[in-house]
Amino acid sequence: MRGEFELIARYFAPLAEAAPGAQGLRNDAALVDLAGPAGPAGDHSLVLTVDAMVAGVHFLPEDPPETIGRKLLRVNLSDLAAMGARPRGYLLAAAFPRDIDEAWIAAFAAGLAEDQAIFGVALYGGDTVSTPGPLTLSLTAFGEVPKDRALSRATARAGDLVYVSGTIGDGLLGLEALRGGLPGVPEDHRAYLAARYRLPEPRLELGRRLAEDGLASAALDVSDGLAADLGHIAEESGLAAEIETGAVPLSPAARGVLEAAPERLPELLGGGDDYELLFTAEPGRAGEVAALAAALDLPLTAVGRMAAGRGLIARDPAGAEVTLEGTGWRHF
Amino acid sequence: MRGEFELIARYFAPLAEAAPGAQGLRNDAALVDLAGPAGPAGDHSLVLTVDAMVAGVHFLPEDPPETIGRKLLRVNLSDLAAMGARPRGYLLAAAFPRDIDEAWIAAFAAGLAEDQAIFGVALYGGDTVSTPGPLTLSLTAFGEVPKDRALSRATARAGDLVYVSGTIGDGLLGLEALRGGLPGVPEDHRAYLAARYRLPEPRLELGRRLAEDGLASAALDVSDGLAADLGHIAEESGLAAEIETGAVPLSPAARGVLEAAPERLPELLGGGDDYELLFTAEPGRAGEVAALAAALDLPLTAVGRMAAGRGLIARDPAGAEVTLEGTGWRHF
Repeated sequence: MRGEFELIARYFAPLAEAAPGAQGLRNDAALVDLAGPAGPAGDHSLVLTVDAMVAGVHFLPEDPPETIGRKLLRVNLSDLAAMGARPRGYLLAAAFPRDIDEAWIAAFAAGLAEDQAIFGVALYGGDTVSTPGPLTLSLTAFGEVPKDRALSRATARAGDLVYVSGTIGDGLLGLEALRGGLPGVPEDHRAYLAARYRLPEPRLELGRRLAEDGLASAALDVSDGLAADLGHIAEESGLAAEIETGAVPLSPAARGVLEAAPERLPELLGGGDDYELLFTAEPGRAGEVAALAAALDLPLTAVGRMAAGRGLIARDPAGAEVTLEGTGWRHF
Repeated sequence: MRGEFELIARYFAPLAEAAPGAQGLRNDAALVDLAGPAGPAGDHSLVLTVDAMVAGVHFLPEDPPETIGRKLLRVNLSDLAAMGARPRGYLLAAAFPRDIDEAWIAAFAAGLAEDQAIFGVALYGGDTVSTPGPLTLSLTAFGEVPKDRALSRATARAGDLVYVSGTIGDGLLGLEALRGGLPGVPEDHRAYLAARYRLPEPRLELGRRLAEDGLASAALDVSDGLAADLGHIAEESGLAAEIETGAVPLSPAARGVLEAAPERLPELLGGGDDYELLFTAEPGRAGEVAALAAALDLPLTAVGRMAAGRGLIARDPAGAEVTLEGTGWRHF
């Protein structure tokens, strides 16, 4: 059968045609303007997004219940961050296996409560049902963005610099550490990577500032991998993109892994689950980006640029092209 | 383990405490006012609701894919109707079994497209994932209601008449017909009942008019059964309620079943899945209710009244109390 993207494009995107704010289901979240009697009212747009997770597919059944709900919430908040939205709340649909015990549910809810306090959101609705299959969760998050300020992946301009927040590749390595891989990596590094995988940090304040200051020309969150997600920006913006692999920011733990196995760099560029923000900005605004990084105490690293054309090229520090095949990235 | 209501009250309602519009997760949907720089902006509130369905639990795996998505959409639209909201759109999370075929997905999407045209809604976002378990769907619907006009189940007043739209009990009998029950019932009646179960009619226009005209003092949609849902209104409003069983509106098909088996009446009052609106209104506004029924070409039948006190009583036409035990209804 077709892959997920093809199925969505073929069967579900047509259902979004009458929803201009859904943008063909191609952005991280959808925009809605509530109507007043004389048309859209208010000075904020609603932003909506949904993600689902299945035990054994998206997380391990033995993962701590406290972090499972938190990760699902954070993944959705990351989609709001990518649009520049301030989160307000969420709805949760949970299909619980019949033999789940109440302690599991209590811990799951306690984890959500912890993140609600951190991110200033609340549960607005839900549905709990019973399933003969694996635990299946879906979460719809909503927030608001000043009207006409929402970020989009489709609006990068040729010549823009490409920035990424935080560090890249930790999500992929964290999953590997949790699966018992990464022999020889120090325990503190393994723990750091595992935490990055289990509890990604949605870059909400960054997204909000990029949107409100009009600093980013395009943005999305790194969920499919840096290469694939920069490819999304390029494709949707009708441009080409270039990544300088030597510039990609790595955590000390990821740097340690690469020192022992430098051939894994393309894999880190292709790995998903980092939930950093990838955004483009005019070169003339580099000073503002640096000031924002300092204000947020969050690295914002230029890793490439947008250009006329199509496709994605990665180059190493010597200027040689790095092949990204087999990393989840497909040329278009 | 505790039942669904207890689990929600214990673990999930506390997560909704910071969301005033979620009303402790006790209404059909949640209300949100988007903020402007100086507080809530716009003259409409956002209304949000979510429902989930699992193959083999909420529908039969061999049910026609066209109607599965439509029913899930309609159940959610019915929650919006119960709040008096006008629907705008929905988000869909689908966990597809790995062996699902594309024709199934195509038919599922075609059914949704049909209902989108009927109800004027569009798909705003979604997530499709793969599951080793049964097909699991969750749908979040959203709409808008004029500010301070949303209907609630908690605001009935003593002396109000209790009305229900359409007919009651068809959902329960429709499921029975689909499972091969109801021997001796004519084929056209079986088909009618099955259609009522598979494609309930969300009473959107009724809900909107009840809210905008301020005609209903309280409302919800009949999903747990007439008795249980009237019990919800009574409990949340701090009142008692009385149903006259002889007044409950029945379709010709349901009436036929009852003529052959009059002892099944309490069961029909306890059956769910009707998705009619149950609402309360001052007796002095009975003329307006009748005019609305005529305008909408939809029966709105007075079936009881609210009174001071607690609990729910059903009486037959002779005034004798009818026991509702064993119908899903529990005394409180």
